[in-house]
Amino acid sequence: MRWKCGCSYDGTDFAGWQTQSGQLSVQEAIEEALSEIFKQKTRIVGSGRTDAGVHALEQVFHFDFDWAHDPQSLQDAMRSCLPNTIAPLYVESVDDSFHARFSAVSKRYQYRLQFGDASPLNIRYCWPIKGNLDFERITQAADLLTGQRDFAAFAANRGVEYESTVRNITRIDIREDDAYCYMNFEADGFMYKMVRGLVGTLVNVGLGRMTVAEVSDLLHSAERTPMVFVAPAEGLFLEKVFY
Amino acid sequence: MRWKCGCSYDGTDFAGWQTQSGQLSVQEAIEEALSEIFKQKTRIVGSGRTDAGVHALEQVFHFDFDWAHDPQSLQDAMRSCLPNTIAPLYVESVDDSFHARFSAVSKRYQYRLQFGDASPLNIRYCWPIKGNLDFERITQAADLLTGQRDFAAFAANRGVEYESTVRNITRIDIREDDAYCYMNFEADGFMYKMVRGLVGTLVNVGLGRMTVAEVSDLLHSAERTPMVFVAPAEGLFLEKVFY
Repeated sequence: MRWKCGCSYDGTDFAGWQTQSGQLSVQEAIEEALSEIFKQKTRIVGSGRTDAGVHALEQVFHFDFDWAHDPQSLQDAMRSCLPNTIAPLYVESVDDSFHARFSAVSKRYQYRLQFGDASPLNIRYCWPIKGNLDFERITQAADLLTGQRDFAAFAANRGVEYESTVRNITRIDIREDDAYCYMNFEADGFMYKMVRGLVGTLVNVGLGRMTVAEVSDLLHSAERTPMVFVAPAEGLFLEKVFY
Repeated sequence: MRWKCGCSYDGTDFAGWQTQSGQLSVQEAIEEALSEIFKQKTRIVGSGRTDAGVHALEQVFHFDFDWAHDPQSLQDAMRSCLPNTIAPLYVESVDDSFHARFSAVSKRYQYRLQFGDASPLNIRYCWPIKGNLDFERITQAADLLTGQRDFAAFAANRGVEYESTVRNITRIDIREDDAYCYMNFEADGFMYKMVRGLVGTLVNVGLGRMTVAEVSDLLHSAERTPMVFVAPAEGLFLEKVFY
């Protein structure tokens, strides 16, 4: 019996989504909770990784277990076994063909910038920016980056070989008020550190450290260069996974 | 030369304001930063303590040092020496008669409640409340608690003998929207855990676990009882100190 679960988490205290030796990962914390509830070692499959310090408004994972009770009781049990920095949003039974990673058709991320000095009360949740951002230039660069493109320049490969570095960014939506700027990215998939590379680039354009033409060159080079500034993990939120 | 400094902090990672053996306190972190900048052991005096997990939008402290440069450079130096969970808001030179604790005439605290299940992304900054709060009853109880009263019932003494347990609460202001409730308290002073005892009491009244008459009895008893529920530290913010 396969279960699909949505969860949110504060990435601050975790070594990212993925289980790795040493520091506790979100995946590991959830697997420990489920193993405790089911009284047997349980593995989960997430829609994809998030890095250390990156948050999730809604991450999705699946797991298999013959739970005899209703989904709500499973969600309640998870809530009480998990640290309060991870919360199950829903648990629903799905067809065995559902796969949290391979069935995902697109994802949405949000990145949060704060203008001026960061407040200690949201330093874990945004990237503080000093200086004025030119939103007209940012929008021009964002338009360039929207669509089906080879984003090789924006992917850190971390020893992983991608079959293809072409992704389709269907939407880059940028909103700002006096204190914050929110950058929303929607695509059929994102490579490792790609959103943070895009944000770092857009901010550099906004600060006048990079021209829109240089972004175009970067994109067409299809090669990772040190010109791509990777924005800090703290400002990034996995917002939604679409199936 | 005496300096007055305003600072905000996220109380999550600290053992409260006050220096104590073991875990790092906010005071200690600031004294370490100043000692590093001034190249000599420096002590500060805060307006009062905040408990472990309690935050500050604006805490005030003073210290003495013959700083030869301008206040802005001192603030900048502090910002770069402090952990990013503590931020100096301003530094200004004051008369030697100024005392962060004894010159304070009143303080304002804010307490934040969240309705329903807490989100992992603000569990450090609010108290999640399940069930509906009756704000008419809460307002009645808040009215009872406003004014010059003996708040002995709401003070945890922690071995400290207060000269007087009479305080003048000049304002209890309660605002709510769909997701949050903000309780603001202003008084000439607060005793140890007093705000959290008031919040716990108001929430119990709102949930129907206590009557307004019982709050009145509690207040008039002028004795601490186990009936006073102390709300969690996480939802509490020292908002402003008035001089």
